[in-house]
Amino acid sequence: MRILIINPNTTASMTAKAAAAARTVANPATEILARTSRSGPASIEGHYDGAVALPGLLAEIRDGEAAGADAAIIACFDDTGLEAARALARIPVVGLCESAVATAAMLAQRFTVVTTLERSRVLIENLVRHYGMGDRARVRAANIPVLELEDKASDALAKLRREIELALNQDGAEAIVLGCAGMADLARALQADYDVPVIDGVSAAVKQAEALVSQGLMTSKRGAYASPLSKPYSGFMSALAPTPA
Amino acid sequence: MRILIINPNTTASMTAKAAAAARTVANPATEILARTSRSGPASIEGHYDGAVALPGLLAEIRDGEAAGADAAIIACFDDTGLEAARALARIPVVGLCESAVATAAMLAQRFTVVTTLERSRVLIENLVRHYGMGDRARVRAANIPVLELEDKASDALAKLRREIELALNQDGAEAIVLGCAGMADLARALQADYDVPVIDGVSAAVKQAEALVSQGLMTSKRGAYASPLSKPYSGFMSALAPTPA
Amino acid sequence: MRILIINPNTTASMTAKAAAAARTVANPATEILARTSRSGPASIEGHYDGAVALPGLLAEIRDGEAAGADAAIIACFDDTGLEAARALARIPVVGLCESAVATAAMLAQRFTVVTTLERSRVLIENLVRHYGMGDRARVRAANIPVLELEDKASDALAKLRREIELALNQDGAEAIVLGCAGMADLARALQADYDVPVIDGVSAAVKQAEALVSQGLMTSKRGAYASPLSKPYSGFMSALAPTPA
Amino acid sequence: MRILIINPNTTASMTAKAAAAARTVANPATEILARTSRSGPASIEGHYDGAVALPGLLAEIRDGEAAGADAAIIACFDDTGLEAARALARIPVVGLCESAVATAAMLAQRFTVVTTLERSRVLIENLVRHYGMGDRARVRAANIPVLELEDKASDALAKLRREIELALNQDGAEAIVLGCAGMADLARALQADYDVPVIDGVSAAVKQAEALVSQGLMTSKRGAYASPLSKPYSGFMSALAPTPA
Amino acid sequence: MRILIINPNTTASMTAKAAAAARTVANPATEILARTSRSGPASIEGHYDGAVALPGLLAEIRDGEAAGADAAIIACFDDTGLEAARALARIPVVGLCESAVATAAMLAQRFTVVTTLERSRVLIENLVRHYGMGDRARVRAANIPVLELEDKASDALAKLRREIELALNQDGAEAIVLGCAGMADLARALQADYDVPVIDGVSAAVKQAEALVSQGLMTSKRGAYASPLSKPYSGFMSALAPTPA
Amino acid sequence: MRILIINPNTTASMTAKAAAAARTVANPATEILARTSRSGPASIEGHYDGAVALPGLLAEIRDGEAAGADAAIIACFDDTGLEAARALARIPVVGLCESAVATAAMLAQRFTVVTTLERSRVLIENLVRHYGMGDRARVRAANIPVLELEDKASDALAKLRREIELALNQDGAEAIVLGCAGMADLARALQADYDVPVIDGVSAAVKQAEALVSQGLMTSKRGAYASPLSKPYSGFMSALAPTPA
Repeated sequence: MRILIINPNTTASMTAKAAAAARTVANPATEILARTSRSGPASIEGHYDGAVALPGLLAEIRDGEAAGADAAIIACFDDTGLEAARALARIPVVGLCESAVATAAMLAQRFTVVTTLERSRVLIENLVRHYGMGDRARVRAANIPVLELEDKASDALAKLRREIELALNQDGAEAIVLGCAGMADLARALQADYDVPVIDGVSAAVKQAEALVSQGLMTSKRGAYASPLSKPYSGFMSALAPTPA
Repeated sequence: MRILIINPNTTASMTAKAAAAARTVANPATEILARTSRSGPASIEGHYDGAVALPGLLAEIRDGEAAGADAAIIACFDDTGLEAARALARIPVVGLCESAVATAAMLAQRFTVVTTLERSRVLIENLVRHYGMGDRARVRAANIPVLELEDKASDALAKLRREIELALNQDGAEAIVLGCAGMADLARALQADYDVPVIDGVSAAVKQAEALVSQGLMTSKRGAYASPLSKPYSGFMSALAPTPA
Repeated sequence: MRILIINPNTTASMTAKAAAAARTVANPATEILARTSRSGPASIEGHYDGAVALPGLLAEIRDGEAAGADAAIIACFDDTGLEAARALARIPVVGLCESAVATAAMLAQRFTVVTTLERSRVLIENLVRHYGMGDRARVRAANIPVLELEDKASDALAKLRREIELALNQDGAEAIVLGCAGMADLARALQADYDVPVIDGVSAAVKQAEALVSQGLMTSKRGAYASPLSKPYSGFMSALAPTPA
Repeated sequence: MRILIINPNTTASMTAKAAAAARTVANPATEILARTSRSGPASIEGHYDGAVALPGLLAEIRDGEAAGADAAIIACFDDTGLEAARALARIPVVGLCESAVATAAMLAQRFTVVTTLERSRVLIENLVRHYGMGDRARVRAANIPVLELEDKASDALAKLRREIELALNQDGAEAIVLGCAGMADLARALQADYDVPVIDGVSAAVKQAEALVSQGLMTSKRGAYASPLSKPYSGFMSALAPTPA
Repeated sequence: MRILIINPNTTASMTAKAAAAARTVANPATEILARTSRSGPASIEGHYDGAVALPGLLAEIRDGEAAGADAAIIACFDDTGLEAARALARIPVVGLCESAVATAAMLAQRFTVVTTLERSRVLIENLVRHYGMGDRARVRAANIPVLELEDKASDALAKLRREIELALNQDGAEAIVLGCAGMADLARALQADYDVPVIDGVSAAVKQAEALVSQGLMTSKRGAYASPLSKPYSGFMSALAPTPA
Repeated sequence: MRILIINPNTTASMTAKAAAAARTVANPATEILARTSRSGPASIEGHYDGAVALPGLLAEIRDGEAAGADAAIIACFDDTGLEAARALARIPVVGLCESAVATAAMLAQRFTVVTTLERSRVLIENLVRHYGMGDRARVRAANIPVLELEDKASDALAKLRREIELALNQDGAEAIVLGCAGMADLARALQADYDVPVIDGVSAAVKQAEALVSQGLMTSKRGAYASPLSKPYSGFMSALAPTPA
C-alpha cells in the first residue's frame, strides 16, 4: 500500500517531520511517499494562505493518483482543499483535522484542539463544527507562528504547554489534539507528561488512510465529490483542467 | 461608490449578465465594475472548479482594491473564495449565497434555493447551514449544467420552473432563491409568475455591498480575516504573495 | 423611496436619534419618515415592555403602509413585533437585530452584541440563535437602563466601553454590534477608537430596507407571513382588526 | 389550588371547551377558573392575531394573579405572550405547546404536532425548535380554520384524521400532539382509535401548572423574566403600566 | 394512583430520602411505593455504575408494573436505563433529569444543573443536550461523591452552595436544578436562601408521573419504545427475558 | 496486536460472521479474538435487549483486557454499552456505528445507514446525531428481524436492496452504511453492484481499533471515562464490582 503525504506548504523540513511521524505509525507494508508542494506559501496561516496553496496541492493529488498512490493525506491541519481533492481523486483523501477529531472522539467525550494562531483557531473551530464536534471540542490558539515550530530555540513548546494546561484545567478536556502538522513530533512526549491522550493529526490521518484502503473503499463519485466535468480551463490554471473521463 | 463584480469563471457572457443585473438595482451614484477572471474554469460546478478558480479570483480582488474599488462581489453562488478574499482585502467582500439567504430571511420564514447540479446542491446546502439557515432553507438541484443557462435554446428554464413549483408545493417554500449567478436575468419574470419573492444573488450582493460601504464598514482585520502575514510564496503562485504591511 | 422608521417606545428623543442615524446612511433619494409610537412604554426593556408596545407599533405599520411607505423599520433592537408586522404588511419590514447581525456576519466570523440590561441580553441571545448566529455571536449586557443612554451625564458610555473591551479581549470578537437603538449615535466614534467594525442596528436596517425596495421585493404572503384573515376583533383592540382583503 | 385558564381569543365556546378539558384532568382539590379575553381577535391564526391578543391576555394575567390565582395557563397552542406573561407574573405561567411537547417527549422518541393552518404550522415549528424538540417532532397543518373546529357540521375532524394517519405512516410518529386548544375535546377518542398517545395541550398544561404549584415553584425573577421596571406607559396601553414594586 | 419509585442503586437511605421527598409533593390520592434495587452498585457515579445497575432496575420495573403500579420513576439523575424501561413497560416511566429540566424550562430561560462528580457532569451535559436544552442549561460538578451526601458531617453542602453561587453569578443562571437524587432534601432550603427556583428531580418526576397518569397516557408502543420481541435470553440474564405478548 | 471482538448477543453464528469480516480487513500482524456473550438476548433489537446485554458484554471487556487484549470492539451496530465499556477499560474500545459513520464521512458528504427494524432506526438516528452526523446521514429500516439475516432462505437481502435503492434515488445518498453487524458479509457485493462506497461496521471498527493501538493511544481516564470508583456491588451484579485501583 502506498500512501502519499502532501505538504501543501513549501517548507521541506515540515514535510520531513510529517513523513517521520507517518512512518512511526504506518504498517510495515505501507510505503509512505512524502511530497512538498512546488508552489504556494511557506506556511499556511489562515484562509488566504490556504487558498493560494490549492493549485500546488491539487497538482500533487492528480500526479500522485496517476503514479499509483492508494490514498492521499493533506498534511495541513486546516484540511485545506480537502473537498476539492476528493472531487478530483478516486482514491481516498484524508485530512488531519477530520482524522484527528474522529480519533479523539473514540477516546474522550470532551477534548481541546490546540493550534497556532488566532486566525487558525476560528478556521479550525468552524471545521470542527462542520465535522459535527462543535459540542464536544474546544479550540485554543497558542500564539505560535507556524514556522516557529521549526525553530528549536523558540519558546513555542512552552506556549503550547501552557495552552494544554489551560485546556485540562479550565475546559474539562479529557484529551488533547495538536492542531498543526508542525507539532507531529511532540505528541508522544506530551502524552507521557500529561497522562491524557494526545493526538497528532499526521499519525491519525495515516491510520485513516490505511483503514480506507484496507477496506477497499474509494471516494464516492456521486453528489458532492462527483468527478470534475470536462470543460475549458484558461490562463495559468489551464494545467489543472480535468481530463475528459 | 465603485463596486467591483468579479466573475470567477472565465465566461464573459456570464459576467455581462451579472453586470446588467447589478446595474438594474444599483444606486445611481454607484459605478459597477465587472471583471472576468483571467484564469480558471469556464464554469464553476462543484468543489474542484471552485478551488482552481481561486488564484484568478484573488488576483482580481487584490488588483481591484489597489485600483480603488470600495467593495467587491464574488459573482458565483458557491461563495467561492469568500473567506480568503476577506482575509486579503480591507474593503468589504460579499458573496451571492450569503447575501441572497440573508435577503430571503427578511421576507419569508421558509425558502428554497434552486441551483444547477446535484454536486452544487450539497455544497450550497453546507453553505446555507454555515450561514445559520439550515432550519429555514432547503436546496434543490434542477439538473442544469451552468453553461446551458447561457443557451436560450436549452430547456433550462423549464427545468428551473419545475423545481420552483416543487419547492412551493412540497417544501412549503414562501420565497425562492435562484442559486446560480447565471440565473440573474430570470428573477423578475419568475417573481411575477409565481407571486412570491424571487431573489437573485447578484442583485442581493450589490445592495449588501452598497450597504456596507454607506455605513463606513470595512472587513475586520482581527481574527479570522486578519491580513495575510508576509512570507515567501513559491512557484507559479509567487505572484500572489502578500505584500508586507 | 420612503422608509418609515417606527420607534415602538414613546420617547421622542430616541426617535430623533434614530432618524438622525438613518439620514446619515440613507441614499440621497430616500426619504426617512420617523414616527414615535403613540401608546406603550417609554422604553422597551424585556419581554413585557415589548409585548405592550405591539398595538402602538402595529398601528403605525398599518398607517404607514396605507400612507405609501415603501418599507418599514422597527427601531428597537429586540425586533419587537417583527413577525406580526411582516404578517400585516406587504411592504418589507426589517428589524435592527436581524439587520445588524446579518451585516456583522459579512465582516467578521465572530462578533459580540453589547446590549443594555441582563433581561435584554437573554432575549437577544435567543433572537441571535433564531437568526442562525448562535455559534458566531455572543451577547453581553452593560447594565445600562435604556433611558440612561439619553442622559449625557450618565456613565453609560463608560460601561459600554468596558463591555466592548471585554468582548475584544475575552470573547475573541472581531466586530461589535451595538444592541440598542439608543446607541445609534455612538457607533462611528467607537469604531474609530477600537479599530474594529462597530455596527449600529438603525443604520444597518436602513440599508436593508433600501436594499429590499431597490430589488422590488415584498414580504412573502405565503405561509408564516400570510395576510391576517378577516374576523371579528373585540374590545380596545377592535381598531386593529384586519381589513377584509 | 386555583388555576386560571385564559383563552386569549374572544370566543367563549372555546373557553368553555378548554375549561371542560381542564376539569377532566385536574386534581379534585384544584379549582379551574376560566376567563375569555375581553379584547382581541375571535381566533388566533398566525403572528398578527397573536400580537393583537396580547394586551387582553396580559390584563387577565395581571388581574388573575392579583385575585389570588396560583398559576395561569395561556390557552392557545401558539404560546402567545408566554414570555411577557412570565415577566409580568410571579406565579407560574404555562403554555400549551411547551407543556404538550414536554409531555409527548416522555412517552415517545418521535412525534408529530397536527395544527390548523399553514401559517400556524411554521410558527409552531419555530416554537418546537425553540423548546429543543426540532429533531424529534414534526408539525403538520390540516388546513382547518380555527373556528371550524367549533362547528360540528364541518369536515374538520376528517381533515385532522387524515393528517394523523400521514404522521403515523410517513413521519414515523410514535405519538400525536393536537396543535390547537380547540381540539381539546378530541384527544381521548383519537387515542382510542389509533392506539398511540394523543396529547391535548390544555390537559397537559393543567398538569404542569399543578406540578409547579405543588412543588412550591414560582417564575424566576432573575434575568429574562425579571419583573417589569416601573416607567411611564402612554396612550391606550397606560392601563397596563407595571405597578412600582 | 400508585407510583413506583425505584432507586437503582442499593443504598436504602437514599431510597428513603427520595420517598420522603416524593410524599411531600404527591397528591393526597397518590400512593408512593419505594423500592431499592436488589443488585448493582451502592451509588451510581458515571457510565459503568449506571450500566451495571440496569438489570436490577429493569427487574423492579417489570415487577412493579405486574403488581399494578400506574407509573414508575427511576430515582437517579442520570436517567439510567430510562429508554430500556420505557421499551419494557406500558405504564409511563419518568426520569429525574428529563423531568427536572422540563420543569426548570417553564420557570426560567437559563438555568444550571449542579451535580456531584466531573464524570457525571459530562454524562448529564450530554443528556441535557439530548433533551434539547443544550442552549439553555449549563452543568456544574461540585466534586461531591454521591454517598457523601448521606453523611451530615461532610462538607458536601458547602461545596454545593459554592457551585450554586458560581452559577448565579457567572453563568447567568435564573434557576438551579439539583443534579442528584441524593440532594432531594435540600431544595426547599436552598430556594429560600437564594430566592431563585431550585428544582429537585425526585419531586419533579413525581409530578410528571402523576400528570401522565391523570391524562390517561401510556408509553407509546410504536417505534423506539415498541415492546421487546420474544426471543431466547441466556445465562444469568435469562430471568429478564421478555414474556411473549 | 490482539483485538477482541465481542458479540454482545448470544448467537454464535453472528460472532463467526463478524470474526470472518474482521479477519478479511485486519493487518497480518493483528490477531482477532472473537467472543460471544455468555448471557443476554439472542439478538439485540431495541433499547431493552441492549440494556440486558450489558452485564455479559462488560464481563467480556473486563476479562479480555485482563487477558491482554490491546483493544476491544463491541460488535453490535447500536454501540450498546460503549460508554460503560470505555469507563471500565484502559484499552481503546470502539463501536460499529461510531466507526462506520466516521469512515463514511471521509468518502461522502451525504450517506444513509440502512438498519433492520424501525425500533433500531430511531435508536441509531439518535446515535448518529450524538456523533455529530445528524445533518449528513439519514437512517432507514428495512424491516428485517436480525436473526433473519442468518437465514439464507429469507428475503432479507431483497428488502435491504430495496432500501439501498431508495437511499440512492431519494435521499441523495453518496454512500451506504450497513447498520447491523449481521450484514458484515454483504458489503463487498453490494458495493460492486451499486458502485458507491458500502461500509460495514465490523470492518470499519477493526481498522479504527488498529489505528488507535498503532498510535499508542488509550482511553482517557479523565472526565466521562474515568475508571469506576471502588464501592460495594450487591446481588447478582456483585461479580462486576470494579476492583480497587
